Amino acid sequence: MSAHYSEAVAGNGGMTPITDVDAYVTQLGQQASSAAAMMRRCTSASKNSALLAMARHLEESRASVLEANRQDLLRGREAGLDDALLDRLALDDARVDAMISGLEQVAGLPDPVGEIDGLRARPSGIQVGQMRVPLGVIGIIYESRPNVTLEAASLCLKSGNACILRGGSEARDSNAALALCIAAGLAEAGLPAAAVQVVATTDRAAVGRLIAMPEHVDVIIPRGGKSLIERITREARVPVIKHLDGVCHVYVDATADLDKALAIAVNAKTQRYGTCNTMETLLLDAPVAEVLLPRLAAAYAEHGVELRGCPRTQALLPSVVPAEEADWHAEYLAPVLAIRVVDGIDAAMDHIGHYGSHHTDAIVTEHYGLARRFLAEVDSSSVVVNASTRFADGVEYGLGAEIGISTDKLHARGPVGLEGLTTRKYVVMGDGHVRT
Amino acid sequence: MSAHYSEAVAGNGGMTPITDVDAYVTQLGQQASSAAAMMRRCTSASKNSALLAMARHLEESRASVLEANRQDLLRGREAGLDDALLDRLALDDARVDAMISGLEQVAGLPDPVGEIDGLRARPSGIQVGQMRVPLGVIGIIYESRPNVTLEAASLCLKSGNACILRGGSEARDSNAALALCIAAGLAEAGLPAAAVQVVATTDRAAVGRLIAMPEHVDVIIPRGGKSLIERITREARVPVIKHLDGVCHVYVDATADLDKALAIAVNAKTQRYGTCNTMETLLLDAPVAEVLLPRLAAAYAEHGVELRGCPRTQALLPSVVPAEEADWHAEYLAPVLAIRVVDGIDAAMDHIGHYGSHHTDAIVTEHYGLARRFLAEVDSSSVVVNASTRFADGVEYGLGAEIGISTDKLHARGPVGLEGLTTRKYVVMGDGHVRT
Repeated sequence: MSAHYSEAVAGNGGMTPITDVDAYVTQLGQQASSAAAMMRRCTSASKNSALLAMARHLEESRASVLEANRQDLLRGREAGLDDALLDRLALDDARVDAMISGLEQVAGLPDPVGEIDGLRARPSGIQVGQMRVPLGVIGIIYESRPNVTLEAASLCLKSGNACILRGGSEARDSNAALALCIAAGLAEAGLPAAAVQVVATTDRAAVGRLIAMPEHVDVIIPRGGKSLIERITREARVPVIKHLDGVCHVYVDATADLDKALAIAVNAKTQRYGTCNTMETLLLDAPVAEVLLPRLAAAYAEHGVELRGCPRTQALLPSVVPAEEADWHAEYLAPVLAIRVVDGIDAAMDHIGHYGSHHTDAIVTEHYGLARRFLAEVDSSSVVVNASTRFADGVEYGLGAEIGISTDKLHARGPVGLEGLTTRKYVVMGDGHVRT
Repeated sequence: MSAHYSEAVAGNGGMTPITDVDAYVTQLGQQASSAAAMMRRCTSASKNSALLAMARHLEESRASVLEANRQDLLRGREAGLDDALLDRLALDDARVDAMISGLEQVAGLPDPVGEIDGLRARPSGIQVGQMRVPLGVIGIIYESRPNVTLEAASLCLKSGNACILRGGSEARDSNAALALCIAAGLAEAGLPAAAVQVVATTDRAAVGRLIAMPEHVDVIIPRGGKSLIERITREARVPVIKHLDGVCHVYVDATADLDKALAIAVNAKTQRYGTCNTMETLLLDAPVAEVLLPRLAAAYAEHGVELRGCPRTQALLPSVVPAEEADWHAEYLAPVLAIRVVDGIDAAMDHIGHYGSHHTDAIVTEHYGLARRFLAEVDSSSVVVNASTRFADGVEYGLGAEIGISTDKLHARGPVGLEGLTTRKYVVMGDGHVRT
């Protein structure tokens, strides 16, 4: 595919049309590598002043950002985008305010870079520790929400990385306007322009090139629907930190406090339907099912949640729709809940291991030993006792901000904050020491 | 390719010939997944007793292990394997002793699993921390050295993982004999047989299948030559923890203590030639080159090290062979050293960034600010001040043992010990807490 309209080249301030997408993205990669080397020697103060300058430039450019967004929305409506997508795309004063305070908040977070852990003297006389350092160049591929542009830029910058941002084509004008604020902030703080580059073509070939440059890009973080992420994971020649899906469970054990169980089961399903940490399947230990199901059914009915149950659930609650095999695998992201009656914690953990997505799973129990077993044995990025799955979130966990939630096991697992955008290298200090 | 001799199926104790390699490896994967779930609930005591039982069974099977190895060596000599390969393949009493004490040593290491870091109360009232847990199923692909079979098995077991081990075809009889000791140790401690499975076919198709089962295998660790590792990285559909190459540098700054510089430069090159942390290029700051080069040349001459230099090196040391571009990229693993005279730390770091492999790089300096810059800015898995690059090693760093040295940035960087074979999940503890 070739570029289908004339585009500005991000990072160089010019308006050169992009004709060779591969060469263009390769150049972004080279520039990012050089910028990453400069970012490694960058102080916290200059990173923070760039973030605050970006916030100021966004405030000053508020009108032009909103106007650019209006163009995106117009084009989106013409193209027949659905309401949910248009809502994610839309900016208003409140959302701009949120972007500005997000930048200020990241500026206020502690800088993870340079921290040295576990520095110890070894019998040989050398001292060895591990220093937290930036990953290098991070490529971020996302969809319609233009505020991701600033979230991603700010977290990558604060963690000392250079980044290449590839937003959705539907947000191209909004992202271009935000890129100007980012560039102005970098320039004001004396940071390299290529520390944050916004890909200035909507040609999909740009994504193909971006994920296949291990010589320039250290990691790719895709944010979007499952099909986008699966495609990127399959084709990437660079490590990917990914979030696939959230088929989250709450298991209510026979010893559970029923009031806590009810509160957690309702909150985990209904506090927000479209988030990855929303419960999708409720597992009830047989002894509690009989007493709890009627109370649950009443509470879910108030919220308009459709229930789909196993035969044992149906026996207790005849109004329930029969659950099919696909329901146990489903990430509904909607007011629908699958319910299954199981016999004890082993059956519950077997279900979670088989049907779950290793995202976030909770137990409600007053039994110490079962809580301990659930914590140790359930292989998910967040394992929860007596609290709602909805807490699985970078801000709730105290990370300050998050770039996403990883369902991978390697490197970063669960909510990924600044630390997940860094790595640790060994530092060795001696005084002429040699190995014998 | 199909199996070219009748083989025993590992883990099931039988002698079923393997006709369908894909189905066989898939079955190993399924068995490993089930074993991994059991390993997550396994105590330190039972893991340690399995390791000690393996050591005992190896002692008792010493004669049959050495006899199996003799068969491998015979076949290897017939096949015309070179002396270096035959040496890596060969076992003798001393090497069996080392394997036995290796097992005992891993049994004595602290168990990393279950450790919870940073458990804190959040404003919402929940407590959040990170628990160290096994990765799950680890596939290890290695070449001729049969002792890797026990090293890998013991480290994976101690870290609570199930593993699938694929050794080199030249070591097939030795590995089969060692697999019997492993199986006996697992059985004695009541651990699942599939916690350690040794692939019982030398068919290369087994590797292709092993690296393409993300549903059963969590990570692949290849240990071997660069071409093996590049092929696996290219074809794997599972995350890979890899060690590519070690083009390690020592930079001697103008302020260096010349005696320390000489000791470090000689040790880093000559203490062992074939290891990945051996220095391959020496960078000399121009002001020290004139005084240091003659002393270095004399010392290296004693060790029979061939020197290849840049034009400025040649001007000071006419006997030096001219270095070509390829020399700066070379991992010689031999008594050969490239030498370049540079102007200051920035030129040295540019050289390391351009030609290095991000493995281990050292500076020799008495200048505090330069030491600090080198530590912060050189993007390598180990960065060293005033000590030999040869220290970059799991045992020297205090990890107890290592499965390899990672040149990746994500997850594990540098020497990988037990901790690198684990991951951290979030644990959340509440008392009926819901999100508002």
